Amino acid sequence: MLTPEDNELLTRIGPDTPMGAVLRHYWQPALLSSELPDPDGAPLRLRLLGEDLVAFRDTSGRVGLLAANCSHRGAPLCYGRNEEEGLRCVYHGWKYDVHGKCVDMPNEPPASNFKDKVQHTAYLCIERAGVVWTYLGPFSPPPPLPHLEWIDLPPDHYLIAKRVQYCNWVQALEGDIDQSHVSFAHRRLDGGSTGGRREVDRIRAADTHPRFEVLDTDYGVVIGAGREADAASSYWRVTQFLMPFWTMTGPYGENPTRQSRAWLPMDDDMTVTFAVTFHPLRPLTDNEVARMRAGSGAGYVGEGNFLPPTSEPAGAWRPKARRENDYFWTRELQRTRFYSGFPDFWTQDAAMQEGMGRVYDRGKEHLGTSDLGIIRVRQRLLQAAKALRDRRATPPAADHPELYQVRAAAVLLPNGVPWFEATDEQRRVIPGVNQAGV
Amino acid sequence: MLTPEDNELLTRIGPDTPMGAVLRHYWQPALLSSELPDPDGAPLRLRLLGEDLVAFRDTSGRVGLLAANCSHRGAPLCYGRNEEEGLRCVYHGWKYDVHGKCVDMPNEPPASNFKDKVQHTAYLCIERAGVVWTYLGPFSPPPPLPHLEWIDLPPDHYLIAKRVQYCNWVQALEGDIDQSHVSFAHRRLDGGSTGGRREVDRIRAADTHPRFEVLDTDYGVVIGAGREADAASSYWRVTQFLMPFWTMTGPYGENPTRQSRAWLPMDDDMTVTFAVTFHPLRPLTDNEVARMRAGSGAGYVGEGNFLPPTSEPAGAWRPKARRENDYFWTRELQRTRFYSGFPDFWTQDAAMQEGMGRVYDRGKEHLGTSDLGIIRVRQRLLQAAKALRDRRATPPAADHPELYQVRAAAVLLPNGVPWFEATDEQRRVIPGVNQAGV
Amino acid sequence: MLTPEDNELLTRIGPDTPMGAVLRHYWQPALLSSELPDPDGAPLRLRLLGEDLVAFRDTSGRVGLLAANCSHRGAPLCYGRNEEEGLRCVYHGWKYDVHGKCVDMPNEPPASNFKDKVQHTAYLCIERAGVVWTYLGPFSPPPPLPHLEWIDLPPDHYLIAKRVQYCNWVQALEGDIDQSHVSFAHRRLDGGSTGGRREVDRIRAADTHPRFEVLDTDYGVVIGAGREADAASSYWRVTQFLMPFWTMTGPYGENPTRQSRAWLPMDDDMTVTFAVTFHPLRPLTDNEVARMRAGSGAGYVGEGNFLPPTSEPAGAWRPKARRENDYFWTRELQRTRFYSGFPDFWTQDAAMQEGMGRVYDRGKEHLGTSDLGIIRVRQRLLQAAKALRDRRATPPAADHPELYQVRAAAVLLPNGVPWFEATDEQRRVIPGVNQAGV
Repeated sequence: MLTPEDNELLTRIGPDTPMGAVLRHYWQPALLSSELPDPDGAPLRLRLLGEDLVAFRDTSGRVGLLAANCSHRGAPLCYGRNEEEGLRCVYHGWKYDVHGKCVDMPNEPPASNFKDKVQHTAYLCIERAGVVWTYLGPFSPPPPLPHLEWIDLPPDHYLIAKRVQYCNWVQALEGDIDQSHVSFAHRRLDGGSTGGRREVDRIRAADTHPRFEVLDTDYGVVIGAGREADAASSYWRVTQFLMPFWTMTGPYGENPTRQSRAWLPMDDDMTVTFAVTFHPLRPLTDNEVARMRAGSGAGYVGEGNFLPPTSEPAGAWRPKARRENDYFWTRELQRTRFYSGFPDFWTQDAAMQEGMGRVYDRGKEHLGTSDLGIIRVRQRLLQAAKALRDRRATPPAADHPELYQVRAAAVLLPNGVPWFEATDEQRRVIPGVNQAGV
Repeated sequence: MLTPEDNELLTRIGPDTPMGAVLRHYWQPALLSSELPDPDGAPLRLRLLGEDLVAFRDTSGRVGLLAANCSHRGAPLCYGRNEEEGLRCVYHGWKYDVHGKCVDMPNEPPASNFKDKVQHTAYLCIERAGVVWTYLGPFSPPPPLPHLEWIDLPPDHYLIAKRVQYCNWVQALEGDIDQSHVSFAHRRLDGGSTGGRREVDRIRAADTHPRFEVLDTDYGVVIGAGREADAASSYWRVTQFLMPFWTMTGPYGENPTRQSRAWLPMDDDMTVTFAVTFHPLRPLTDNEVARMRAGSGAGYVGEGNFLPPTSEPAGAWRPKARRENDYFWTRELQRTRFYSGFPDFWTQDAAMQEGMGRVYDRGKEHLGTSDLGIIRVRQRLLQAAKALRDRRATPPAADHPELYQVRAAAVLLPNGVPWFEATDEQRRVIPGVNQAGV
Repeated sequence: MLTPEDNELLTRIGPDTPMGAVLRHYWQPALLSSELPDPDGAPLRLRLLGEDLVAFRDTSGRVGLLAANCSHRGAPLCYGRNEEEGLRCVYHGWKYDVHGKCVDMPNEPPASNFKDKVQHTAYLCIERAGVVWTYLGPFSPPPPLPHLEWIDLPPDHYLIAKRVQYCNWVQALEGDIDQSHVSFAHRRLDGGSTGGRREVDRIRAADTHPRFEVLDTDYGVVIGAGREADAASSYWRVTQFLMPFWTMTGPYGENPTRQSRAWLPMDDDMTVTFAVTFHPLRPLTDNEVARMRAGSGAGYVGEGNFLPPTSEPAGAWRPKARRENDYFWTRELQRTRFYSGFPDFWTQDAAMQEGMGRVYDRGKEHLGTSDLGIIRVRQRLLQAAKALRDRRATPPAADHPELYQVRAAAVLLPNGVPWFEATDEQRRVIPGVNQAGV
């Protein structure tokens, strides 16, 4: 339960908010490189942290990310001419390079130095691992990219999925560090899997009230959720929260694929979910890729399951399943196949999170022991916002990219063996090693 | 004409408003029993007095009415599993019975007593006369149901109709205690009836300016509207207003069917109209029922004349005729058949009331002698709100259900005979008697 | 760049705003006479300066413009019966003449003098030159109509076009006194014309940075924009701004057609553009009219290019090309035919102006020498608003209709010859004379 003041502080991320300032200290996975396929191609509207932006790939292939409206008199740059190393407004021909420098101002006299006085808002972009990363923060130069494991992998080792979620980022993020919902929201009634292996499914169905142990880390929070496996041992699933919006949940099986997710605020009311499935040691198989592209697995909407693209920000990532059609929920499915009644894995989460309201009011909730992870993550975020606001303290790990070299884990342990110590190696990124999940 | 302060006081009915507090002292006809046909059937979204709720019928057949969002972390209960005497949230399995008691909390340890500390918002429901009545007020136990005449009748003696109206409840209510509009808004140009008998139609067309006499009663207001019938006699139609939103207008003919209506606020901007047509002494005839189901008569939209149902609150009761299509108004109809130009009886009212704006600003109006009833009803409502707010006075008749045993009336009287005294018996519910209207 | 206070002052035009008070001192070209074709015809919804109104043509052919909601209890008059010299509300039969006098109140006793106490809001209308002009201002009698040149012409000498633009009126107006955008937003890549003659097109393409000289006038502002024509001479295009929202841009060719435009606020967020193309000396040719009706030329959407009419205010003037479909912009068009990528002349302006946001925030802009005209027009408007607000000063030219007898001009002048003096005759309306543009 939060006070109204803390709820606002936690959720609002516009340019003039404390949490907005926190988030701006971190690199944002703003776009897929494939969304800007060609040099001098079509500009793309973007809405990020409450700011309207336009992205483009210039003649040299560099990505620019500019404030959406021209510095001159506010005309929309999304219709601009992307040509000769810059984006040119079609109202009066002002042209900006990827740094926001006004490199041409053809409606002013050639002798004028007015264009040198115009610095258009531009955010630094780096392309890495198929992602256009951008930095909206105060440091120049910015810190290095967070050293997430998949960033170093060859392109065939990972697959990235996106979708729009119509709610505030925090309630979406909270849903991903919530282990107990798996026993309910994702339960199958028809023998299908909840994502885990059969043995894990059995454990989750049998023990629906995991014990939580939560520890602060330099980069965020690590959360152990233990369930009874049998009389003598427990199944511990270890979730990582990395500032400001990264999550990793425990993998399944030996030599497992892994997932890393970000909950990227478009603004206070809309979120882009960003999910990377990767294998540390090998390419994803054709079968794995095909299943994800078909919409199977956490985070994957599937290629045929989006609404027709529009030119609005994130207009390519709007799922067909949405509140207006009850996410294809039916009572018959609820009776026979899916505990929740929602046929798609991702809607089993999204319907719950969007159904809380656009910005969930945490003044009426009742948190239990199963919410210890969520409670701690909120505290870390609020602490970071207050420390930055009140003491100008750099948020955790913002300048320590090496801290992101962690993994989630899942293990079977004899009762009494402490999960944190037991997963010490599993929770680290060790090249060439991919310790078994369960 | 009202001050801005009084207009707000009169119209706003959310949980923290004075008028909202007044309305919560009375039972609300929230749903038809037929909207929740089966035990363990689909939950139903409801919006009532500005609150988002979910209704369900449990295994035993009892109706529950719960706050729409789970007490745990706010997930939407409308997708819940309705099973084994309770509604279970599909996010974490929390289960509530019809009293809002958390009867299962499977994501917490079995030994935990946390679930005993959670009291989910639940409103008491009673089913009577085909209606699910609910009480959102302060008294426990609540007062008995208002003893409206039709509540005691066998099911084949009445028919209930609903529809959504896209405006504040007060301007809709005002329209129903307004007698003078009948001569205009409902006038026919083609010989069709305005709802009354031919003689009444003639009187209304000939005398378009009824004289109003208004009296306070223990339960609300009684309004006499007199029109010249001939040189020696008058037609008096007697309208009842019963706190907080019930209306009864004068019946037509000997041994007449009667109507009782409620104007139920979904929120400040939307109203559900609730109309009961009944005969005190006999079943409605097949012909009467067929005509109402086809959309003929005050309040009846007709079964084919609703938009396709949605799962939104009141999504089954949205008429096709609406502002966006001008309620099927045409100039040709206005020239030849309907004075107003609107072909449906109910749209002749709704178009006027919705056209005032969502919440009508009473600061610019000009009330005449024909508005005496409306003036008095507003005063009673405002008095009740101020008395409750300032002196904690229980609103009129909220705890006196027996006061609702009244009828509307319509009589022909020799000039000089006082209508109030003359209709004394007609205005009372007398079992086995159904005194003639005109 | 404006302060937030000045931006509000400049743009907001509701009944209680300083700029709204300025605009109400001038006649408004509210409707085309052809929008109210017949006596006793259908009433028409109108939204003007933030006010909801209803227009009708009475039995005698006079146009009335009334507040949209009945003075009685606020019912919508747009459904009224237009008959026998007045508009009658269909709720209770109250009837208003074109002066807003309540001429019948049939639901009150005939002896009542209540109707004499009701003065419904009505605005004086005059029909002239195919336009219904209305006056919402304080003076009674109002000043004469502004003596715009085309008002005196025979009907076959002019053609009027309208459309809705989804933004504040000022940013639309600014776009029309902006000369430098012609070289960019309207540039053709395929040899087509930007509206001018071939020689003018060549000059605009060669010299994209006109020199601006701006002078205050009694009626507004006159703006000269000079471009190099050849080594010895310049092309000067002279734009007129006439208070409060009239613009005239320099004509093309010998004995040219001319255009006069108004940017009429429906409210703060929506504008109706009003464009008159006229020839001072002769009827428009069939070819000229056909081209405009097909959607060619500044301001002309073309008859087939509107959305289906609705009964909402300005519902007949909503272009198909709109933000939601990117105004039919394509990258292919941008590459091959139109510098901007927008195929329609008017969308080359509207897309830019609407893309600034509904009410453009002038706090972040960077104005150059090419914006001198815009800067001065804003100053004149702000000065007028402050002078009226603080000193009750009548806005410029509001009571001097003779000042509107001016023309825009376009000339080729030897370098060093001052454009203002050289266009002295061209900038005046001289009957029987239509001095050549360029």
